[in-house]
Amino acid sequence: MTVETHSTSEEQRHVSEGSAAWLEELMQWLRIPSVSADPAHHPDVAASAQFLADVLRRTGFPTVQMWEETSALPAVYAHWPSDDKDAVHVVVYGHHDVQPADGEERWTYPPFEPRVIDGVLHGRGASDDKGNIFMHVLGLKAHLAATGRTSPAVHLTMFVEGEEESGSPHISELLTAHAAELNADLVVVSDTGMFNAQTPSVCVGMRGLVAGELHVHGPDIDLHSGSFGGAVPNPITELARILSRIHDEDRHITIPGFYDGVVEPTEQEAAATAALPFDEHAWVTGPAASRAAAGEGGWSTLDRIGARPTAEINGIWGGYTGPGSRTIVPTDAFAKLTFRLVGKQNPEQIRTAVTEFFAAVAPAGVEVTMNWEAGGVRPLYVDTTHPATVAGARALSRAFDNQPVLFTREGGSGPEAELSEAMGAPLIFLGVMTDSDQIHAPNENTEVALLFRGCEAVAHLWTEIAAVGRAGIAR
Amino acid sequence: MTVETHSTSEEQRHVSEGSAAWLEELMQWLRIPSVSADPAHHPDVAASAQFLADVLRRTGFPTVQMWEETSALPAVYAHWPSDDKDAVHVVVYGHHDVQPADGEERWTYPPFEPRVIDGVLHGRGASDDKGNIFMHVLGLKAHLAATGRTSPAVHLTMFVEGEEESGSPHISELLTAHAAELNADLVVVSDTGMFNAQTPSVCVGMRGLVAGELHVHGPDIDLHSGSFGGAVPNPITELARILSRIHDEDRHITIPGFYDGVVEPTEQEAAATAALPFDEHAWVTGPAASRAAAGEGGWSTLDRIGARPTAEINGIWGGYTGPGSRTIVPTDAFAKLTFRLVGKQNPEQIRTAVTEFFAAVAPAGVEVTMNWEAGGVRPLYVDTTHPATVAGARALSRAFDNQPVLFTREGGSGPEAELSEAMGAPLIFLGVMTDSDQIHAPNENTEVALLFRGCEAVAHLWTEIAAVGRAGIAR
Repeated sequence: MTVETHSTSEEQRHVSEGSAAWLEELMQWLRIPSVSADPAHHPDVAASAQFLADVLRRTGFPTVQMWEETSALPAVYAHWPSDDKDAVHVVVYGHHDVQPADGEERWTYPPFEPRVIDGVLHGRGASDDKGNIFMHVLGLKAHLAATGRTSPAVHLTMFVEGEEESGSPHISELLTAHAAELNADLVVVSDTGMFNAQTPSVCVGMRGLVAGELHVHGPDIDLHSGSFGGAVPNPITELARILSRIHDEDRHITIPGFYDGVVEPTEQEAAATAALPFDEHAWVTGPAASRAAAGEGGWSTLDRIGARPTAEINGIWGGYTGPGSRTIVPTDAFAKLTFRLVGKQNPEQIRTAVTEFFAAVAPAGVEVTMNWEAGGVRPLYVDTTHPATVAGARALSRAFDNQPVLFTREGGSGPEAELSEAMGAPLIFLGVMTDSDQIHAPNENTEVALLFRGCEAVAHLWTEIAAVGRAGIAR
Repeated sequence: MTVETHSTSEEQRHVSEGSAAWLEELMQWLRIPSVSADPAHHPDVAASAQFLADVLRRTGFPTVQMWEETSALPAVYAHWPSDDKDAVHVVVYGHHDVQPADGEERWTYPPFEPRVIDGVLHGRGASDDKGNIFMHVLGLKAHLAATGRTSPAVHLTMFVEGEEESGSPHISELLTAHAAELNADLVVVSDTGMFNAQTPSVCVGMRGLVAGELHVHGPDIDLHSGSFGGAVPNPITELARILSRIHDEDRHITIPGFYDGVVEPTEQEAAATAALPFDEHAWVTGPAASRAAAGEGGWSTLDRIGARPTAEINGIWGGYTGPGSRTIVPTDAFAKLTFRLVGKQNPEQIRTAVTEFFAAVAPAGVEVTMNWEAGGVRPLYVDTTHPATVAGARALSRAFDNQPVLFTREGGSGPEAELSEAMGAPLIFLGVMTDSDQIHAPNENTEVALLFRGCEAVAHLWTEIAAVGRAGIAR
């Protein structure tokens, strides 16, 4: 006789019943190489959209559309209104395109021939994002079956784009063109992960991003460093001196106004971060492949990645870079810079502050120009006390044997803040990717059991969100 | 009736008499494209050596040899002992190879079809160095004719190499192999210039040089700057910070021990530099093609070029340098560095000091390596009070209507210090190149009248040096 330590929920039971057929269908989807970055695979991206649309229709969504007016790569839209007229309108966001599978020789199994081995699903897209977005299919079925409903407890919209791995170049146009359909009370993003497979957690922040190129122009011609060196400004020297002034000795960013809008973690968030089972030594020597952790004084490694903004030099070049030496004072020097933003930092204000800083520290005798890339990504800041955040965490906790759910902040950047702003709605994350999934790398994989947990969390989520209600979400 | 303001010397008269034939012969020599850097022209370098050897034989040198045991590109050696057994032994150094004539479409006249137009000789090598070394042919004839001697007033050795424009890769071997023939009391280098055509001057210093590559290694793989940025050392940031520490705010070099051996100009030298008709604005906007003069505080532009050592960054690279942005923390960053040395600075000691400095300022978490190029060039320091220096200046003054001769220091580097050291003899410069000669560029040219002045200076030089005598030179 065995002792059940946890009660089995109805949702869990229905997920379990549907799991085999669902996994089979997911694997069919993974066979479609929907690589948006490669024009040769654009027909596959269209086929992938069609596959998902068919599945959603069969699942019961009364409205399913292909949105392809802004791009050749279609987004899938599906809507299933709740019978409860005043239900919360939720838009689920994710994507059906995948990263390229470059270097197929480095894959243990062919990237587009998915298979399950020892409980692990292998294949491109298994985690990012087909696996995670497909959780909504089985999750919704289990939600309906467990609650005995014939429609979801929320007005449910699926918005699954096909260009995310190419930088979502048309998402602004989609959001504008379909503002009516996407007029949500809440956005749920299923394109992020958990701290690890044993630690249920939800993302409560993603960093924003602005990118540009700093150019220092010195002499108009390469000069002989014997005849001129020491007597005219060297643009490389000046570039290095300018770049060295971005951070102080303690690696705080010195740019006036840069930290405006940074939201420091609350005590609760700091406690949640401290509770994460983070092994810094393993991180440094493993995924970071570095000799040491280093960064802004007064903050932990996890804070530096998730809670703090950065100024990063991604590339630098100028002068002679071939073999041996060439005795020149070169004409130009360049650096590529990106700034990661957090909290309520504003990309436009950051660009202005950085441009003014470089102008202020530019030495006489050289021309200093900062050329920004258009656009930029706003940071996403999730209020951990918001009822929707709490509801999402509760749904995940129920799927993970009522374990406490921790909060994490991701260092990367995505279009989520823009989604939230365009829809005028708060946003929460529900995803079960983990660091070991090797997304964007060879041998992408995910634990099948984790996907089933995600399906179960989805099934609970609509009930939890419905309990909060529109007034609670809008509070 | 005209008034002669300057008496015409016998030397000048004999230069004038021989000038037409001499110019014709020089132009024949300039037709030989003796480009040492281009293997296709190596037969021409050999032909150029043969041409010079024939001329020197006809001039009367009893010993003329081709030295080609160390390289396929021959040096020309010629020796004419003085009848005065105890005469000073002088070695004249120069080169018969020339710079490439790349970009022939940018030449007004074909580079190897020399011609005289409005008193200006056009053609590759007209100045550097065929024109300047050929002055010794007519100068010597005039010396003999004016003094009525049948041998020079000094034991005269010509040592004209064929690889100078390729960095003199075999000169050390030549100096060692022929130490007996080159056992001189004095070296005269005719491969430099004057302040300008109206300002007779001699070079009394050339800067030394050491070159190397600074390498900063960070993570072992390019990291995603979203997931890792701010929490691991960025090698470009660290490189910029290290490079920014080479100079202080006043652009003094901060490397401990770096200034050891620097010889500051004497009051006489400072006065000579101040007397040079230097137009800084014209220099900045003209040859320097810059927006401002800038350099070490407390020193003038001419001092910064000639009298002061430098640390120059000639190239820099690392990370992503293509179009757009790539959000990485890169693995590596590199910089090419050269240090110009003056006075008695020692290349080996400088290398040690710089290496130790970089090791001392290297931050934790990155690997910092300085890789030096072998060799290096010692600075050449000429004592302006040395009797040989004074004699050389007097010879030049006599050729320039007894104008005062100023002293200049060149910022560039050459093998002169090595010559002087290998022969254990002091060294002086006698050359009439000017900044407008466009050596190493298209449209190389020189004023014919200036070459004749140079011939006359040579004719005076042997008399002046003989007057100083071996004891005076060795003082």
